[in-house]
Amino acid sequence: MNPLQSAIKEKAIAIIKQVFQKHGASEIDTPVFERKETLTGKYGEESKLIYDLEDQGGELLSLRYDLTVPFARYVAENAISNIKRFHIAKVYRRDQPQMTKGRFREFYQCDFDIAGQSSVMIPEAEVLKVVVEILTNLDVGNFVIKINNRKFLDSIIELSGCDKAQFKTICSSVDKLDKEPWEKVEHELIHAKGLTKDMTTKLWEFVKRKGSMKEMLDQLRSENVFGDHQLANETLAEMELLYQYLESLDCLDKISFDFSLARGLDYYTGLIYEATLTEEGKVGSIAGGGRYDELIGMFSGQNIPAVGVSIGIERIFVILEDKAKAEQNIRATKTQVLVASIGKNMANERFKICNTLWNNGIYAETMYNDNLKPQKQISYAFTNGIPLIIWIGEDEIAAGVIKVKILNNKEERFLKDFIPEMQQLVVENPVLTAKEE
Amino acid sequence: MNPLQSAIKEKAIAIIKQVFQKHGASEIDTPVFERKETLTGKYGEESKLIYDLEDQGGELLSLRYDLTVPFARYVAENAISNIKRFHIAKVYRRDQPQMTKGRFREFYQCDFDIAGQSSVMIPEAEVLKVVVEILTNLDVGNFVIKINNRKFLDSIIELSGCDKAQFKTICSSVDKLDKEPWEKVEHELIHAKGLTKDMTTKLWEFVKRKGSMKEMLDQLRSENVFGDHQLANETLAEMELLYQYLESLDCLDKISFDFSLARGLDYYTGLIYEATLTEEGKVGSIAGGGRYDELIGMFSGQNIPAVGVSIGIERIFVILEDKAKAEQNIRATKTQVLVASIGKNMANERFKICNTLWNNGIYAETMYNDNLKPQKQISYAFTNGIPLIIWIGEDEIAAGVIKVKILNNKEERFLKDFIPEMQQLVVENPVLTAKEE
Repeated sequence: MNPLQSAIKEKAIAIIKQVFQKHGASEIDTPVFERKETLTGKYGEESKLIYDLEDQGGELLSLRYDLTVPFARYVAENAISNIKRFHIAKVYRRDQPQMTKGRFREFYQCDFDIAGQSSVMIPEAEVLKVVVEILTNLDVGNFVIKINNRKFLDSIIELSGCDKAQFKTICSSVDKLDKEPWEKVEHELIHAKGLTKDMTTKLWEFVKRKGSMKEMLDQLRSENVFGDHQLANETLAEMELLYQYLESLDCLDKISFDFSLARGLDYYTGLIYEATLTEEGKVGSIAGGGRYDELIGMFSGQNIPAVGVSIGIERIFVILEDKAKAEQNIRATKTQVLVASIGKNMANERFKICNTLWNNGIYAETMYNDNLKPQKQISYAFTNGIPLIIWIGEDEIAAGVIKVKILNNKEERFLKDFIPEMQQLVVENPVLTAKEE
Repeated sequence: MNPLQSAIKEKAIAIIKQVFQKHGASEIDTPVFERKETLTGKYGEESKLIYDLEDQGGELLSLRYDLTVPFARYVAENAISNIKRFHIAKVYRRDQPQMTKGRFREFYQCDFDIAGQSSVMIPEAEVLKVVVEILTNLDVGNFVIKINNRKFLDSIIELSGCDKAQFKTICSSVDKLDKEPWEKVEHELIHAKGLTKDMTTKLWEFVKRKGSMKEMLDQLRSENVFGDHQLANETLAEMELLYQYLESLDCLDKISFDFSLARGLDYYTGLIYEATLTEEGKVGSIAGGGRYDELIGMFSGQNIPAVGVSIGIERIFVILEDKAKAEQNIRATKTQVLVASIGKNMANERFKICNTLWNNGIYAETMYNDNLKPQKQISYAFTNGIPLIIWIGEDEIAAGVIKVKILNNKEERFLKDFIPEMQQLVVENPVLTAKEE
């Protein structure tokens, strides 16, 4: 990650962190590696992408694959009964060598989770609000959050007469409906997974359904879509409660209810969701999560219900980088003043000025040679977006004055009251707007 | 790392980052793993502590051992000729299983480096100033920065008649002089490393020297300690220049010139330094670095001189944590308002209030049950240091008013102009000072 990218990353992470903190989350930090056994069996097919450490003695370790399983392990190990936490850190995936690029093997996730006993759908509503706030504040364009419920998927599979044991494999086909037509998915279900035409026909009646929460809930109620299937009807009532909460939180316009959403991971038990940017050229999932009531119990035996979301921000970085380049409003450094000199061997004099600036909290630089050409120093200021230059030469030193040049308007000033006047200039010239001639 | 520790870590890192940025450094981020061959041969004996990843196909990778070698690799690979960068991230050491504790296997380093052609000792002076500013701003007590020069060590070994090939092993003995008496070190040099008594006697004449820069430089000059040894005398002149720069930067009182300082890593070529806290019970190295002019060239063939420092902040975290506990002034979260309710099924009403607060940037929480006892909510506010509670009940909703309780003075107010008045209250009540009765 180069300096410009780092500056963008820092800005994006600051926005995300602020939303997490605004919602009362504390930060926890788990190690980059977990015991291999901690990760084993939590990711289904994706397990093959886990990076293992070499056995050099000690425990068998793997790099974390996401931040959710390490969080569950942490809650269980510390016998925590309630926590709302965030964690912004990198996770690691051993991707196919031919695709090997830095950002696919290691990338940031920004996770927000609420663990502990709670009433139905209250934490879920807050998590969705958090996602809406973050994507709005990042200003990355329009987005939509698709939602569904693991319990609907369970019900649907039962209602279609499919074998429960095939839950995972059927869901993995259905999940492709955002990219592929039903005909293709149906072909796979029948020919690769052994479903009957009758089963797929019934399945299609369910998974084709999507729309606004209001439409969908009305439809499911009025058409009595689930008959007397108990789990499905209970889930419907829960979704109606979620609808009310999201209305109170003014988020409904960002939500799309989609029966074909069936995220991959094994550990979800209730609501699931996935956020996607919807503007052309920006399509792609950028956040996902759901309720996972049994994961923490896998480590401690004591079930602690939990719900969370994970925001993957690499795509967001790319969008913000393109935007910053277009607007030219991001700098890699924050320097406000370049301390420059005319004449040889002025390093001591430059350091004295720098020292005063640094001690007073002013962001200042001086170049690292003792015989500098003025033009080189001017170019340095322009290249690095530094708006002010303090020039020192033998005349200035002899006269005991400090000369500053404001690059934005070419004005030169002799300062009387050094630090207060510099502080004023820094406030008046937050960025460099002029160009080098 | 638990939430309180994370809050302290965040505060400490913010202080360090600000100093780096005040000195014009940009941030770069290198991957957590490097090719195994990149790290091989850079760390001498410590190489055995490098964590390797399992060979699962693809490249052979190791976790980064420090941030310096990855930085050198980055500069070389991107053909950068000049850069001043910082990087705050974790590094990994495969420590002895019996010592295995999270913080010894993975810990933060905060690195600041200046790479590129420069005049003698100018970048070194700035790096030392950066360390002084950081340790001062962190407010962790008194400290001293020991300095020495690799070129003095080379000269001393020559002047004592030792074999140059034994440089590393002699330095590793000499480096123990901060913990062990000369007699013990001398015994090791003679009996384990094969030096003659004559050699160790000469060596002692050099390595016993330490003191303020002024004393030491005066001594070395007036006693003509190095005779006509060219490298030593050139180095002395460079150190005299550094002395001037540090005087201009007002840092001399923190510097101790110590001929026995001989940091372990192979790659240093000039000035070396190590910062230590000097108050009782706080002893231990917390920062170190030096000039490494040949490391970047090991990756690209093109030598780019560089100098840097690495601050290890785990010990600083511990000090700050003890201090925060004593002063009770650190919270794990930043919540300003708890939205509480009296009566059942008020989640929608609480969410409506929260929504308005969040949309206006106020840090607010509400609990996750729909039937909450008032006392439980009050306890939650006290436990989490939340200074304000908004109470809603059927009476308030019917009357269309918002009641807020200021815990610090037990005052209750009914707000007319909701958000502006809340913003005012948040400013007036930045922390919770009252205790639960």
